[in-house]
Amino acid sequence: MPQSVTDMALEARQAALLLACAGETARNNALLAIAQGIDDHLDSILEANRQDVQQATEEGLSAPLLSRLKLTREKCARMSQGLVALRWLPDPLGKVDYAKELSPGLNLFRVSCPIGVIGVIFESRPDALVQIASLCLKTGNAVLLKGGREAARTNEALMEVILQATNACGLPQGCCGLLHSRQDVAEMLRLHDLIDLIIPRGSNAFVRYIMQNSEIPVLGHAEGLCHLYVDDPCDLDMAVRLTVDSKTQNLSVCNATETLLVHQGVAGAFLPRAAQALREKGVQLRADEAARAVIDCEPATEEDWRTEYLDAILSVRVVDDLQAAIDHINRYGSHHTDSIVTSSDAHARAFFERVDSADVFHNCSTRFSDGFLFGFGAEVGIATGKLHARGPMGMEGLCTYKYRLYGSGQTLSDLNAGSFSLTHQDLEPKLPN
Amino acid sequence: MPQSVTDMALEARQAALLLACAGETARNNALLAIAQGIDDHLDSILEANRQDVQQATEEGLSAPLLSRLKLTREKCARMSQGLVALRWLPDPLGKVDYAKELSPGLNLFRVSCPIGVIGVIFESRPDALVQIASLCLKTGNAVLLKGGREAARTNEALMEVILQATNACGLPQGCCGLLHSRQDVAEMLRLHDLIDLIIPRGSNAFVRYIMQNSEIPVLGHAEGLCHLYVDDPCDLDMAVRLTVDSKTQNLSVCNATETLLVHQGVAGAFLPRAAQALREKGVQLRADEAARAVIDCEPATEEDWRTEYLDAILSVRVVDDLQAAIDHINRYGSHHTDSIVTSSDAHARAFFERVDSADVFHNCSTRFSDGFLFGFGAEVGIATGKLHARGPMGMEGLCTYKYRLYGSGQTLSDLNAGSFSLTHQDLEPKLPN
Repeated sequence: MPQSVTDMALEARQAALLLACAGETARNNALLAIAQGIDDHLDSILEANRQDVQQATEEGLSAPLLSRLKLTREKCARMSQGLVALRWLPDPLGKVDYAKELSPGLNLFRVSCPIGVIGVIFESRPDALVQIASLCLKTGNAVLLKGGREAARTNEALMEVILQATNACGLPQGCCGLLHSRQDVAEMLRLHDLIDLIIPRGSNAFVRYIMQNSEIPVLGHAEGLCHLYVDDPCDLDMAVRLTVDSKTQNLSVCNATETLLVHQGVAGAFLPRAAQALREKGVQLRADEAARAVIDCEPATEEDWRTEYLDAILSVRVVDDLQAAIDHINRYGSHHTDSIVTSSDAHARAFFERVDSADVFHNCSTRFSDGFLFGFGAEVGIATGKLHARGPMGMEGLCTYKYRLYGSGQTLSDLNAGSFSLTHQDLEPKLPN
Repeated sequence: MPQSVTDMALEARQAALLLACAGETARNNALLAIAQGIDDHLDSILEANRQDVQQATEEGLSAPLLSRLKLTREKCARMSQGLVALRWLPDPLGKVDYAKELSPGLNLFRVSCPIGVIGVIFESRPDALVQIASLCLKTGNAVLLKGGREAARTNEALMEVILQATNACGLPQGCCGLLHSRQDVAEMLRLHDLIDLIIPRGSNAFVRYIMQNSEIPVLGHAEGLCHLYVDDPCDLDMAVRLTVDSKTQNLSVCNATETLLVHQGVAGAFLPRAAQALREKGVQLRADEAARAVIDCEPATEEDWRTEYLDAILSVRVVDDLQAAIDHINRYGSHHTDSIVTSSDAHARAFFERVDSADVFHNCSTRFSDGFLFGFGAEVGIATGKLHARGPMGMEGLCTYKYRLYGSGQTLSDLNAGSFSLTHQDLEPKLPN
């Protein structure tokens, strides 16, 4: 009889309390043990994956999804390398980022600590399971994972490796768990007393469903509706290169550009060149009337400004000026990633200040919006909300903090009576022994 | 015809975009202008408040609530002083807390910025309106406020002063707005596309209603079920003083202690003294059997461990050891504030690490859990969730950040082709011009 999701969450809650004080060495050792376990069980993992791929092929899964599902020796080697790299990153726990003497002998420290129990729902790629679980272990969080149905055998095999490794390293029972069905997910979403955070990865509709059907806080992005704005003045060669890269380097990712905005002053010179370069990459354009006066393509509708294509389609709009571009982005965008191509520093500054998005870029491709590229080691996703973590979410986003106040008998009555007074002096950010 | 809440929120959304780049001087000037306005309109504010107090008296509002509702010249002077103090606090916006060269000429900066539009629902105290509105303006956020019905005239008079001041200082129209009814609140809770954050202050049931009835993120606390744990070994004199202060310094506040936990090793020596000191303050005790073997009082039920009395009642439980105290707190507490009285540094350390609460204290009263005392200048509330702000929530909790990436034409295709490589060097945390 398998455990119910509620039982798993109860166990994860207990595990989280223990994991929070398990110590850096035990958590790091577990990461290395998982890497070793993947090596030791490589044949059985690849065999489980072969069966998943065979079934998915028979069921007609699309070629791009099959390619994400399929594990290879090389992908497994990269998983192992990722685990070793994570092991060497500094411990995210126990860091002091606020230290204040409230009064002599009454010292306050804000100290980073794990969030607790995290539920992650992810897509078909089975290597995501290892990446997410290892980020959670590094940050001292217990985690319940639900992967894609088509990767079920692979995920079981990988979770078996993780459980053996965490057990062997003395991490608490139940610190990682695998859910199996949509009903499991529905049950998890109700457990707001046991689960602290849900991170959903997947389609727009799926993420919205999660957000609307749980009292548990949700971090992630429903949509990546990113813009590239080509300003006047700008380097037109650079603008063409950035347009092609932002749209076509990978069509199906959240930080690919979906709408190209062009200042009227450069539309005549820029758009024909951009259109030709994009068409060579097989991109279909949908443009407003002003753009269609310069290039030949389908007309764009209001709906296009709101559409994340994740495909070889780009909507194009000519704008009167910088402010019109900013207004378009704030109105239609998803607050994910937006980039300006301009040779005016003043325009770049205004764009940085006024565009209300997690990632705002100048003279580079929207494709740079990524936790690994940003230097975080790895990411669990990109958050488009404004609370807690915003943008690429790495280890820091999986931590919270608590305030520790070290006293020596102080009461508020004594403070109010003037027996002692507040000093509010900064302290060295280092915990007492 | 008054504006609908949706119209107010649309206007606030536009105002927030402007306010985010309004500049420190304009925001600080507005704070001083509000202080001046309170001075200039003192008589009409006090007259409005007199009418509110008169009506509330006729309607039978309780004495403690009447005292919170009533404004005096002294309370208004304190409001003004608070505004001036806030003006002199450092600007919370534009601070860089992560700066990394991704590659030469591709530099990443994480920069603090306002959250956007914040909805605050607060209790009868009208001075809270000025405090909350000023914290929002200092942090560049637009704010919609809903105060207690009984303070309606006072709140109107104060909001009039705020609107005159923000207009005079060139802050955008609609950056502060006042809601008037429960229907207004219900409408606001539906506007998840326009409002970024709700901060509810009030009763447990009210806050839970808000959390369950909105897709907008909510920060705050539904409950303050705080514990004081008297450990073995400890200074018994200190333990008695901290018990009395934690419970009785103010009975009706969220950081007052509701449950006293006592190590069995000191129960015989400590409890009779604590019981006598508490009874002198009029506190009624409800205790488990082990405690009742030492002191004479009513028995506690399971329900008592889950009850935030906000009254002159204290539940008391004897525990076997430190871990049993920690388990009780993590099981029954509200993750707000919990304090240990111990002379063992090892026990204090274990308590700090294992108690899963926002504020964890050693040898001091639970009453120190407060943003002003913590050195934040002021607070909008105390958050018991784990995401974004945890514990007393000051200016930092009203800010988010964005990532600014300054490039010089980089594409991801070029990176992948090896035309340039990642360096991930730390930079000075200072924005380019």
